[in-house]
Amino acid sequence: MVEDRSFEEIRVGDRASFSKTLGEADVYAFAGITGDFNPVHVNKEYAGGSRFKERIAHGMLSASLISTVIGTGLPGANTIYLSQEVKFTAPVYFGDTLTAEVEVVEKREEKRILNLKTTVVNQEGKMVVDGQARVMKM
Amino acid sequence: MVEDRSFEEIRVGDRASFSKTLGEADVYAFAGITGDFNPVHVNKEYAGGSRFKERIAHGMLSASLISTVIGTGLPGANTIYLSQEVKFTAPVYFGDTLTAEVEVVEKREEKRILNLKTTVVNQEGKMVVDGQARVMKM
Amino acid sequence: MVEDRSFEEIRVGDRASFSKTLGEADVYAFAGITGDFNPVHVNKEYAGGSRFKERIAHGMLSASLISTVIGTGLPGANTIYLSQEVKFTAPVYFGDTLTAEVEVVEKREEKRILNLKTTVVNQEGKMVVDGQARVMKM
Amino acid sequence: MVEDRSFEEIRVGDRASFSKTLGEADVYAFAGITGDFNPVHVNKEYAGGSRFKERIAHGMLSASLISTVIGTGLPGANTIYLSQEVKFTAPVYFGDTLTAEVEVVEKREEKRILNLKTTVVNQEGKMVVDGQARVMKM
Repeated sequence: MVEDRSFEEIRVGDRASFSKTLGEADVYAFAGITGDFNPVHVNKEYAGGSRFKERIAHGMLSASLISTVIGTGLPGANTIYLSQEVKFTAPVYFGDTLTAEVEVVEKREEKRILNLKTTVVNQEGKMVVDGQARVMKM
Repeated sequence: MVEDRSFEEIRVGDRASFSKTLGEADVYAFAGITGDFNPVHVNKEYAGGSRFKERIAHGMLSASLISTVIGTGLPGANTIYLSQEVKFTAPVYFGDTLTAEVEVVEKREEKRILNLKTTVVNQEGKMVVDGQARVMKM
Repeated sequence: MVEDRSFEEIRVGDRASFSKTLGEADVYAFAGITGDFNPVHVNKEYAGGSRFKERIAHGMLSASLISTVIGTGLPGANTIYLSQEVKFTAPVYFGDTLTAEVEVVEKREEKRILNLKTTVVNQEGKMVVDGQARVMKM
Repeated sequence: MVEDRSFEEIRVGDRASFSKTLGEADVYAFAGITGDFNPVHVNKEYAGGSRFKERIAHGMLSASLISTVIGTGLPGANTIYLSQEVKFTAPVYFGDTLTAEVEVVEKREEKRILNLKTTVVNQEGKMVVDGQARVMKM
């Protein structure tokens, strides 16, 4: 579902999250859309010999789950996505269950801008993406 | 094809790019993977009444083409993606042809780290994503 | 539906066909599975300046519709696909409606092998793929 | 990334390859595009009772990886695909890692035509597709 909270009712400290288990189908579709066929994502033999030992998801795929929270949860519809910074802090393996979370850390009333803390953790609570975003709520 | 340039042969000023026309199929598949069904991306009626007048692509989809250049071109295989910062500077419409470009702006020899300028422009040369990335080349 | 005609009831001269309009979604998905992001398929600007003037489908995508006829129509289930030869005789544009046709041209009873004439034509009857296949019917 | 080697710099003996692990997602997407729902590809129960014992990939899917090498590697952009012959020499199972390789075996200068040896092998080095292609390099 797509939320649409008004700027006025959003408070610093508000949070929202979205969770999904990423499968091979997701990673392969993401490669297929973007053209990123780096072998660590789509070649089991290569990945087995890499530092990761298995195929891993694209960092930008995990990071894109943040967009999901912003676009459908907090602030939801009528949000302009201004910027996103991400650090890729741990690998994501096929079958990992990710939870992207957004937390409002600052509200700039005059410009209707929100600064957001944005993180993605796996099923063990390990942070795989850390970062922050800036959005404008219309 | 996936490039694999050695850290030693990469120079400050090196560039690589990747181009693709983003269609409805891309945006819908991206929504389907991530769950970001914000109506501005998938609801023509809603988008028609928005400031954008038409459905637009997800910002993180456009930004993900940067990952394609990094993962398959420069530096290509055996690259660890450490961080990415993006500003979404203009909307991307269905049918726009995007070119993501990466340029090496700094080389930190001791840690095998590269700082990259990362941009995405549309078919009119308008910048739609501006940003920078940090990668480690193994 | 998947047919399963017995080897005994198949006659030289038997035919079957399958038709589909190929859209951008098909071509993009094919690029996404195979990794073939040649710009003539996925870059409208590049294709516009090419001899084709527009984006075209992958030749092997059009040719793969032959596999559909063989695998689901004639001979259908329990067929071993031994070989396929194709000539790409004309470009296929997004929105073209292709008809793949298979005709039995030879039956080799002792080995249960069939030689097939395999063609793909567009909505104007223009041949886009010409070729032949060899299959074994179990 | 898409290569674009000039006809002049291509030599007999030049090679390029592309590798990918084929998953269920690939085979199912290929079935979905082409309509080839032969049960040996999409019906685990049926395939279990077949000579293959498991679901296998479509031969034309494996063969299409040759198109990827031709269209993005050797010769890359600005190549006209004239013909392709393939023999399906062994089954491809879900999870197999395929490497498609193209080797230039003949150069016909006057017509800018290249004859290519085209093969696909699995992770054990077993040939699954053998064949040859003819292309024109613009």
